Amino acid sequence: MDVLDKKILEMLEINARESFATIGKEVGLSAPAIGKRVRQMEEEGIIEGYALKVNHEKLGIETKAYITLVIHRGPSGTTGTQKHIEAIEAMEEVQRCDRITGDDCLCVLGYFRNNKHLVSFLEKIAVYGASKTSIILEV
Amino acid sequence: MDVLDKKILEMLEINARESFATIGKEVGLSAPAIGKRVRQMEEEGIIEGYALKVNHEKLGIETKAYITLVIHRGPSGTTGTQKHIEAIEAMEEVQRCDRITGDDCLCVLGYFRNNKHLVSFLEKIAVYGASKTSIILEV
Amino acid sequence: MDVLDKKILEMLEINARESFATIGKEVGLSAPAIGKRVRQMEEEGIIEGYALKVNHEKLGIETKAYITLVIHRGPSGTTGTQKHIEAIEAMEEVQRCDRITGDDCLCVLGYFRNNKHLVSFLEKIAVYGASKTSIILEV
Amino acid sequence: MDVLDKKILEMLEINARESFATIGKEVGLSAPAIGKRVRQMEEEGIIEGYALKVNHEKLGIETKAYITLVIHRGPSGTTGTQKHIEAIEAMEEVQRCDRITGDDCLCVLGYFRNNKHLVSFLEKIAVYGASKTSIILEV
Amino acid sequence: MDVLDKKILEMLEINARESFATIGKEVGLSAPAIGKRVRQMEEEGIIEGYALKVNHEKLGIETKAYITLVIHRGPSGTTGTQKHIEAIEAMEEVQRCDRITGDDCLCVLGYFRNNKHLVSFLEKIAVYGASKTSIILEV
Amino acid sequence: MDVLDKKILEMLEINARESFATIGKEVGLSAPAIGKRVRQMEEEGIIEGYALKVNHEKLGIETKAYITLVIHRGPSGTTGTQKHIEAIEAMEEVQRCDRITGDDCLCVLGYFRNNKHLVSFLEKIAVYGASKTSIILEV
Amino acid sequence: MDVLDKKILEMLEINARESFATIGKEVGLSAPAIGKRVRQMEEEGIIEGYALKVNHEKLGIETKAYITLVIHRGPSGTTGTQKHIEAIEAMEEVQRCDRITGDDCLCVLGYFRNNKHLVSFLEKIAVYGASKTSIILEV
Amino acid sequence: MDVLDKKILEMLEINARESFATIGKEVGLSAPAIGKRVRQMEEEGIIEGYALKVNHEKLGIETKAYITLVIHRGPSGTTGTQKHIEAIEAMEEVQRCDRITGDDCLCVLGYFRNNKHLVSFLEKIAVYGASKTSIILEV
Repeated sequence: MDVLDKKILEMLEINARESFATIGKEVGLSAPAIGKRVRQMEEEGIIEGYALKVNHEKLGIETKAYITLVIHRGPSGTTGTQKHIEAIEAMEEVQRCDRITGDDCLCVLGYFRNNKHLVSFLEKIAVYGASKTSIILEV
Repeated sequence: MDVLDKKILEMLEINARESFATIGKEVGLSAPAIGKRVRQMEEEGIIEGYALKVNHEKLGIETKAYITLVIHRGPSGTTGTQKHIEAIEAMEEVQRCDRITGDDCLCVLGYFRNNKHLVSFLEKIAVYGASKTSIILEV
Repeated sequence: MDVLDKKILEMLEINARESFATIGKEVGLSAPAIGKRVRQMEEEGIIEGYALKVNHEKLGIETKAYITLVIHRGPSGTTGTQKHIEAIEAMEEVQRCDRITGDDCLCVLGYFRNNKHLVSFLEKIAVYGASKTSIILEV
Repeated sequence: MDVLDKKILEMLEINARESFATIGKEVGLSAPAIGKRVRQMEEEGIIEGYALKVNHEKLGIETKAYITLVIHRGPSGTTGTQKHIEAIEAMEEVQRCDRITGDDCLCVLGYFRNNKHLVSFLEKIAVYGASKTSIILEV
Repeated sequence: MDVLDKKILEMLEINARESFATIGKEVGLSAPAIGKRVRQMEEEGIIEGYALKVNHEKLGIETKAYITLVIHRGPSGTTGTQKHIEAIEAMEEVQRCDRITGDDCLCVLGYFRNNKHLVSFLEKIAVYGASKTSIILEV
Repeated sequence: MDVLDKKILEMLEINARESFATIGKEVGLSAPAIGKRVRQMEEEGIIEGYALKVNHEKLGIETKAYITLVIHRGPSGTTGTQKHIEAIEAMEEVQRCDRITGDDCLCVLGYFRNNKHLVSFLEKIAVYGASKTSIILEV
Repeated sequence: MDVLDKKILEMLEINARESFATIGKEVGLSAPAIGKRVRQMEEEGIIEGYALKVNHEKLGIETKAYITLVIHRGPSGTTGTQKHIEAIEAMEEVQRCDRITGDDCLCVLGYFRNNKHLVSFLEKIAVYGASKTSIILEV
Repeated sequence: MDVLDKKILEMLEINARESFATIGKEVGLSAPAIGKRVRQMEEEGIIEGYALKVNHEKLGIETKAYITLVIHRGPSGTTGTQKHIEAIEAMEEVQRCDRITGDDCLCVLGYFRNNKHLVSFLEKIAVYGASKTSIILEV
């Protein structure tokens, strides 16, 4: 990665749909040269993909919450933490799911249609552990 | 928003750089028709932008952490919480900054080059409040 | 609901037994007109009922307490939270029972004849979860 | 207070606007006799008033929360806790305000139009102490 | 109980072995009159007994601790809290055992020969609940 | 201290007003011999005094509480902890005051006429630190 | 132990491989005299051994953490705490393992190759209790 | 570092005073060859020194404790955390002092002659922050 790659990444971070021509004009390269560099960063795994930034409120999301989950463990302490994370990450309400230090727990960021939806989600994830919920207050 | 708009959003969520032609073929519309619908969703604020998904580890990020910040308040309880959030969100290490319920606090998600970088960040945000740090353990 | 309805509600909030005649004089309507508006607010569910404000101390209540209850869950995390709330709300000591954020718990406001009565209540609700008690100190 | 008074209280607790005639029929006394007993319970302070039960959601309340408030104290520990409670109880959002055991704090039950309203309330009461918020999740 | 009884209690609180003659001289009554009053306070249960104040350090006590004990409950929440308290109070190390508000727990004040003795006590009471220990630091 | 001294202590612990004659009969010594041994244990500081066990409820105590007090410290961390303890121990409501491990705090056991009395005590000790109160629930 | 022994210990604490000749020159004794004194301190158990101070980072340690472990107990509260400590102390990642006051727990200091290694260690010790992790941030 | 260096480190970890001749015999090298390798590991900073393992109890240590210290910060949040750590590490009672995640704090391991010594240490470090103490219970 050189200075030009960094510049390309910066422009794509502002607008991931930016045309290679526009980027090229800014950077001083041709569109195909930009395309080649982008494909290489994709192949190297530096660029993992292109995501949409939607307005969740306009799509019906009224409640956002951080939920920490102290993991239940079996009688011998055995657990399938990695499997739990994968199952939780696959739920449609879940934006992120991270294992964090402190109490042995997962931190889940979830988006919900309303508080009722949040409550039913809490019931659903209760099989994995004891939850603690903090609602995000947009200010 | 109708069923076609939803389908378009779904495809852009998988790949925000998808060409309108490809989306159109899937949805049964022409590329210009897709473009028109996308522009309308942009104008309505449903689509807020297009983001890059980069591999932060490959860009030199070794430490990711959630930091909660109980806000300092002046002798009369006055505070500029909204200003604090804006100042913190503008820091390059910060991915998210949310006001949450529970103790009167902010929840910051930050990415850092290493633990030393995290420590200097903690010193920097100490002007805003008392911090509590949980490191993300990739599993 | 218009301005007159709001005025009627305000007067009933001060004294729910206020006669429609007195309210009418204040509002500038006849007693039957007030009666019609009140019945409509009852039918729309805006007015749910009329409650007595009694002095609980004079009726033998010496101990009031907030009790939070972290819900017990079965081995598979299953629970009948909704049923628990209904069972607890039906107890004569219980004034309110709300599910709240934070630790996955219920918040119960209870009135008791004395501390002994509170202790026997704590034993009774122990089947639903682990309790934490804060006594209300009248000042 | 005798058995008849108890019966009268019970009927008024179900419907505080019940006519004395209806109560009398149930209890086996004339309407004036019921009226006399009710006035005596009012004079003795057993009956403190008659309250309206409104549906707050229909009146625009979207957010209900318990807020505990650890009281700020001056450099010499002096405080006007009693005054704080009175000031907080006088706020229109506040349903209850109790001093409770545990950490030296107040427990406030507040009803708010929405989360934004709650946040501005939190800013307002920050002059009295450090707050901790639990949202009520209707289930 | 009159003023003289109060005076007698005060003198016995300073020295519970004080002779009735000495107390009588102070109070202005004969020794038998004091004896009669003391016996009556014993019969009324005002005076429950006479205790020795020993120097525990000189009797080999090196470690004093407050131990709170969150009570274990069976699968149906049943418990024999009263029995637990009696069993714990009967242990020779235990000076006090009180049920307290907050987390559903007992507060035990224990005196131990040394830290090893404290540890074996903690193992012993683990059958009743989860313990938390605070050592008393004589200053 | 020999076996006989231990036996004497045990008898005085059951009843600190026991006559030396009765103790002597049990132990196999004369009353003066018992008196000599007791005086020696007093001189050695093993026996520190004789205390009255009164029934506090019968003397008007309705509220007993453990109060922990995290000590306020000046801007440079200086404190007069030892002085604080002495001032608190001298208050008539205070039965014990111990410095304990955990959060840098004092543990106070206090007896109060009622909750109002407790509240005024909490206001009084607020100059020394931030308090946390647990009411004793007699069972 | 006399003043010379103390001086010898001080020099060995700075450099445990210091030759007896060098120590002797400093202390004013012959090398054999130093050797004799050192052997006696070894025999008395004052000197337990000689340890290497290695730079763990240079040997591949990226993550150091304190982990507290609230001990699991069987249905009857029985436990083999002493055995647990021995098992944990024998693990190669463990530098210290202490039973501490507060919640009934062990405090483990562990050194790990990286966060992944720490996570697998946490899974391993989950059989002994519920863990809480604090990462050491070198500053 | 090769396999032989690792073997040398292992032997020195068991006994840091082991002679190079003995190590050489085990490893299959001459004493001077061992000496050369050890000196090189010293120069590379892999070996930082040689420490004494003393029995602290025999040297008069009765109390060992972990003390966490939430750092005081000035009105603008400024602090000299690094300086604090250095000042604390220089105290003779301190074995370790680490900055850790969780609440913004230091973790101090201290050895003390007795509880009185610990208390005076707590007073001394109160200038740096709010302390929390856990006594180590040798088992």
